[in-house]
Amino acid sequence: MIVVEAIKEIQEKVSEFRLQGKSIGFVPTMGYLHEGHLSLMEQARKENDIVVLSIFVNPLQFGPNEDFDSYPRNIDRDEDLARNAGVDLLFYPTTSEMYPHKKLSVSVKVNERVDVLCGKQRSGHFDGVATVVTKLFNIVLPHKVYFGMKDAQQVAVIDGLIQDLNIPVELVPLETIREEDGLAKSSRNVYLTKKERKEAAKLYEGLNLAKEAVRNGVSDPEIVKKIVVEHITNETSGKIDYVELYSYPELETISVISGKVIIALAVKFTKARLIDNITFVV
Amino acid sequence: MIVVEAIKEIQEKVSEFRLQGKSIGFVPTMGYLHEGHLSLMEQARKENDIVVLSIFVNPLQFGPNEDFDSYPRNIDRDEDLARNAGVDLLFYPTTSEMYPHKKLSVSVKVNERVDVLCGKQRSGHFDGVATVVTKLFNIVLPHKVYFGMKDAQQVAVIDGLIQDLNIPVELVPLETIREEDGLAKSSRNVYLTKKERKEAAKLYEGLNLAKEAVRNGVSDPEIVKKIVVEHITNETSGKIDYVELYSYPELETISVISGKVIIALAVKFTKARLIDNITFVV
Repeated sequence: MIVVEAIKEIQEKVSEFRLQGKSIGFVPTMGYLHEGHLSLMEQARKENDIVVLSIFVNPLQFGPNEDFDSYPRNIDRDEDLARNAGVDLLFYPTTSEMYPHKKLSVSVKVNERVDVLCGKQRSGHFDGVATVVTKLFNIVLPHKVYFGMKDAQQVAVIDGLIQDLNIPVELVPLETIREEDGLAKSSRNVYLTKKERKEAAKLYEGLNLAKEAVRNGVSDPEIVKKIVVEHITNETSGKIDYVELYSYPELETISVISGKVIIALAVKFTKARLIDNITFVV
Repeated sequence: MIVVEAIKEIQEKVSEFRLQGKSIGFVPTMGYLHEGHLSLMEQARKENDIVVLSIFVNPLQFGPNEDFDSYPRNIDRDEDLARNAGVDLLFYPTTSEMYPHKKLSVSVKVNERVDVLCGKQRSGHFDGVATVVTKLFNIVLPHKVYFGMKDAQQVAVIDGLIQDLNIPVELVPLETIREEDGLAKSSRNVYLTKKERKEAAKLYEGLNLAKEAVRNGVSDPEIVKKIVVEHITNETSGKIDYVELYSYPELETISVISGKVIIALAVKFTKARLIDNITFVV
């Protein structure tokens, strides 16, 4: 595995690979890798000649009151994990390599699929995501890019980005990887207390209760959301940020549940805000 | 020359060329080609294996009161000119091919180099330019892209776009092509009356008087701008939109003229608004 910090260097390498007709699979991350990331790398390894992993904690997607400084980092461990997962190129740029100027003269703005779920409360978050992902696409020039469905809104936004800017890359969304009790893997799970960690399994339980209700014929989004809210309220000490239901990936409000839908939630614990979701076709 | 309307088709063709190791030169235009465009195509022809020309009148960069509907079009003539100029691929998409959805879920926003010159009065214009150019870059995947310095602010914005989004393309700005009397070539010159056409030569004359003054030691931007304003006011029936002087390509206000600068102007005639500029190093 080669570790590259300079944009110019990785651009030269991937251009060479492309000229050799090699396919490039790309896994963009903010590091502190967990099994969710590993599943993306494994899939990329299966489907491509070259696997590129990027680790970059992108300041642009953190709000002023969010956890940019305290976001967990461990590059040595990440390097070992990436090497073992068969990554060929690890792109690990500094902030000044990615953002050399005080202000970006242009940026990517997300107009749709953004004023719902996490985007509603995180003004500018997805602009930051879309901007850095566009930059990374231009730097890595991948044929396929891998994202986890844990952040389903991010997948929806990236889907819109790729379509509307005609980015020549195939988006491969992969299922959320879960702990044995159902909790979605996340870098932020380390912030949970022991008691909260146990309660956190109830989030996925609530989503499944809702899905079951839909399968049993409930078609009113309000009733379905209430099932999730009540389960989490009764079973955990977490504070619900939102429980929402939309069409997917358009993320539009629906009055009757049909087609592909997402039920998504965010719940705040003492030091961690967890998100989870399920998508399914009715 | 092959004429392609479908994005998918041109993406397939350019991918093939790239795999063959061929260099791609790209000239994006809104059509109604004149000698300015031809000089871009000629230069692209000299420097690349494959020359791609795009013709697309981009609605996104026209304001609600601007001339989108009446912007001159003549695709048959353009095709002949492009063929004679040695263009290999003419990309000529419909509006719905470029913008299949009612609203773009993401777009490119220009934050710098934009609240001056034409950008000041054309809110959203450069967002539209940056968005379509980003799309075209992703569709055509060029090694080099050619723009005329007639729209110097556009060149500055594209320069920022390429740098800040790490687009793997080399920007080649080419000098403004002029009529014998100095008037910059433009699709909009056809809208001038005979009298206005004669007067229009005074725009470039004014810019050169200003440059001469700087060469002779004048370093106050206000004095230099006044020279241009007075010349145009005295010699033409046009209405001055602006005469401005900035650093280039940053387009920042300067109090003393030094380094690379631009003097730029926009003048309204009855049915045509003309722009022109000169850049030089002091």
